[in-house]
Amino acid sequence: MKLLTISSVKILVILFFQQILLAQMPKADLIFVNGKIWTVDKSKPVAQAVAVLGDKIIAVGSNSEIKKYAGKNTKIVDLKRHLMLPGFIDDHTHFVSGGFQLMSVNLRDAKTPEEFAQRIKEYAEKNPGRWITGGDWDHELWGGELPRKEWIDKYTQNVPVFVTRYDGHMGLANSLALKLAGITRETPDPPGGLIVRDENGEPTGILKDEAMSLVYRVIPEPTLEERINAIKLALEEAKKLGLTGIHDIGTTEDLRAYQELYKRGELTLRVYLRLPISQWEDLAKLGIEVPFGNDFIRIGSLKAFADGSLGSMTALFFEPYDENPNTKGLATDIVIDGRLEKWAIEADKAKLQLSIHAIGDSANSLVLTLFEKIVRENPSWDRRFRIEHAQHIHPKDFARFKNLNVIASMQPYHAIDDGRWAEKRIGKERCRTSYAFRPFLDHGG
Amino acid sequence: MKLLTISSVKILVILFFQQILLAQMPKADLIFVNGKIWTVDKSKPVAQAVAVLGDKIIAVGSNSEIKKYAGKNTKIVDLKRHLMLPGFIDDHTHFVSGGFQLMSVNLRDAKTPEEFAQRIKEYAEKNPGRWITGGDWDHELWGGELPRKEWIDKYTQNVPVFVTRYDGHMGLANSLALKLAGITRETPDPPGGLIVRDENGEPTGILKDEAMSLVYRVIPEPTLEERINAIKLALEEAKKLGLTGIHDIGTTEDLRAYQELYKRGELTLRVYLRLPISQWEDLAKLGIEVPFGNDFIRIGSLKAFADGSLGSMTALFFEPYDENPNTKGLATDIVIDGRLEKWAIEADKAKLQLSIHAIGDSANSLVLTLFEKIVRENPSWDRRFRIEHAQHIHPKDFARFKNLNVIASMQPYHAIDDGRWAEKRIGKERCRTSYAFRPFLDHGG
Repeated sequence: MKLLTISSVKILVILFFQQILLAQMPKADLIFVNGKIWTVDKSKPVAQAVAVLGDKIIAVGSNSEIKKYAGKNTKIVDLKRHLMLPGFIDDHTHFVSGGFQLMSVNLRDAKTPEEFAQRIKEYAEKNPGRWITGGDWDHELWGGELPRKEWIDKYTQNVPVFVTRYDGHMGLANSLALKLAGITRETPDPPGGLIVRDENGEPTGILKDEAMSLVYRVIPEPTLEERINAIKLALEEAKKLGLTGIHDIGTTEDLRAYQELYKRGELTLRVYLRLPISQWEDLAKLGIEVPFGNDFIRIGSLKAFADGSLGSMTALFFEPYDENPNTKGLATDIVIDGRLEKWAIEADKAKLQLSIHAIGDSANSLVLTLFEKIVRENPSWDRRFRIEHAQHIHPKDFARFKNLNVIASMQPYHAIDDGRWAEKRIGKERCRTSYAFRPFLDHGG
Repeated sequence: MKLLTISSVKILVILFFQQILLAQMPKADLIFVNGKIWTVDKSKPVAQAVAVLGDKIIAVGSNSEIKKYAGKNTKIVDLKRHLMLPGFIDDHTHFVSGGFQLMSVNLRDAKTPEEFAQRIKEYAEKNPGRWITGGDWDHELWGGELPRKEWIDKYTQNVPVFVTRYDGHMGLANSLALKLAGITRETPDPPGGLIVRDENGEPTGILKDEAMSLVYRVIPEPTLEERINAIKLALEEAKKLGLTGIHDIGTTEDLRAYQELYKRGELTLRVYLRLPISQWEDLAKLGIEVPFGNDFIRIGSLKAFADGSLGSMTALFFEPYDENPNTKGLATDIVIDGRLEKWAIEADKAKLQLSIHAIGDSANSLVLTLFEKIVRENPSWDRRFRIEHAQHIHPKDFARFKNLNVIASMQPYHAIDDGRWAEKRIGKERCRTSYAFRPFLDHGG
């Protein structure tokens, strides 16, 4: 046991002193007046004006009350009777992927082969030297002819291209990408994949399903700067939507990029970053517990998948799909081989939060059963279990959400997205407890 | 690439609103008046009064200026012309070990065998059920007779005891501790250690050097609560000394304890926790960069040893010790086998700070050479190299500290601690550049 060396005291220089000496009474940096401001205070739900100093709201009230905080350096914004709301927190983002999506060429509404080629040409000119990916094209828009590498090769001789259909099940590679991937007329179709060929046996550039991975594996990982640039685009998008915080799902590389942006003073929203559950031990080994970090970057929650999605009929249900009676969906491999259970129990012991994706009723049910086991076996703590999506719920399970204090982390957007084909997939009865915001509120889940 | 799901917006409830509505103009929580307050502001170095709101100083000035901030709930403290300073930051603590030290029985000034036994008796009564360790006894105070297990066995039949001499080179175990360690009259002395025995060959309880590890290995690791209690004692000590921050050296278990105290609202100083350099990869794998954490707990710096200490003649010098011409001291095993260099280069690449202990002039020199290599090989960043102690410096090396922007993390306490025997150990000439605060300031190191 070593001596406590309370020694070498250095002085904490509180620079704040100097700033304060300049201004005897606090004046706001920024004042908003003449608005309809939702205060989230039941006793006074609406105010006219708000004063901000540094990163804090220092006063809310009437125009005349708040104008007292105006100094000669205060910026005053007239809201002109518009509504003002507190910042939004999105509870489920793939923010960095979203940024890369925004960064990539947009082919989603290209209506002719010429437009398709033209957009790639323009993108290549503006973004020299990097792979062109994304795209989200739809060949039905020009009658169904699949695109060919010849459409774009002349514009992309020095840049590899692999742009994918909007469903992600096929993509078009240009000649350079095929070359980098080592795909020639001699290359056999990989199991589960198809290299589309012309009448002479020459690859056209279209790769389907597993054949796509031949190209994916040669696309380089984005650099830190590329990742940062993608995040910046996503931050701009978030600003437009009023987002000031996200509960993100990402990687340790994303964490590095967020830290760099924070150090540059360019991280304009708060990030609660959830890493894959397979990394629970890396966090536990360091003794990091949820939530660890500062106001802008926090970690300590872990993301896992219990099943797939409704759209692909891989969400796991108790009963077969109405649309295909041969399947009830699929549990993920980590559910089946027991890793999810083992990891989740250990992660919870190490005071790491669990955020588990579950769409189908059976997947939700098995996650609840796992949570029950954890509560039984591990010491209690402020664990705040989350089920991401909690989309289709067996009626008996609403009470379990409540009893286990599970956060049903639901996304209203899904009700107007895959909600459109839900009834076709799973029938009317199960739809009654799908996207079940009201039952969750009634049960207090 | 997945869609950016900017969805499910939840409202950021700014509870702050409510608090602010209660008070139209800010009033301080706490005001100090009538003092001599060192402001660390050169243009106005001394003030009379200071106002505090929440965790921020909101104003500094004269008594009359500051009294404007007094409201009906403001606590006013009269400093009675005493000096008030900003909080101190200790740049090198082993805070948790220090807490355990404070928690253990104090035998340092026990002057008789009776007093020795009496203190252990009282400690055992007050702290039932846990190992009694520490102690720091000195048998020279009662004439040199080594203590024996019989002195304390009758008070400690149900609690194992292993109290050590203040130099850490021997300890007294009671009968229960010997039993738990499996030490009997048949146990051979381990290499480098001695089990002291009486005239009949029976162990007396005294274990020297390597024999001590026979007991150490059966002492259980402290529980989280024990660790927290040790830290609480250290926090009390720190408060008395005006410490508001520490640059600590500790373990991941310490990190858990600090987090728990923080969550309980009981962490009363800011901790910059430096983990062992052997854990660089655990941090790098997660993408954690220095400094990561909040205002109260931050990580991202790594502690390593390049040599030993002056007292034990293991600090590494260019020339032999004056006191023993057969040794120049010892580099640590990780210096000798190359791990320090490898780890340091990789850790720096991963944006983790290096805090390397170096006492002797040769150890300081080799660390500077390593830092030069890192600067040459790795991309530049705000790396803030630290050498802990930087105690004995070869005259040619002061400039290297400056050129590499190395922080000489020195502890004035050492100049009055092992400074007392420095000249005997290394002679007059080398002492000229020992504890060399002035030369470092002159060189701007």
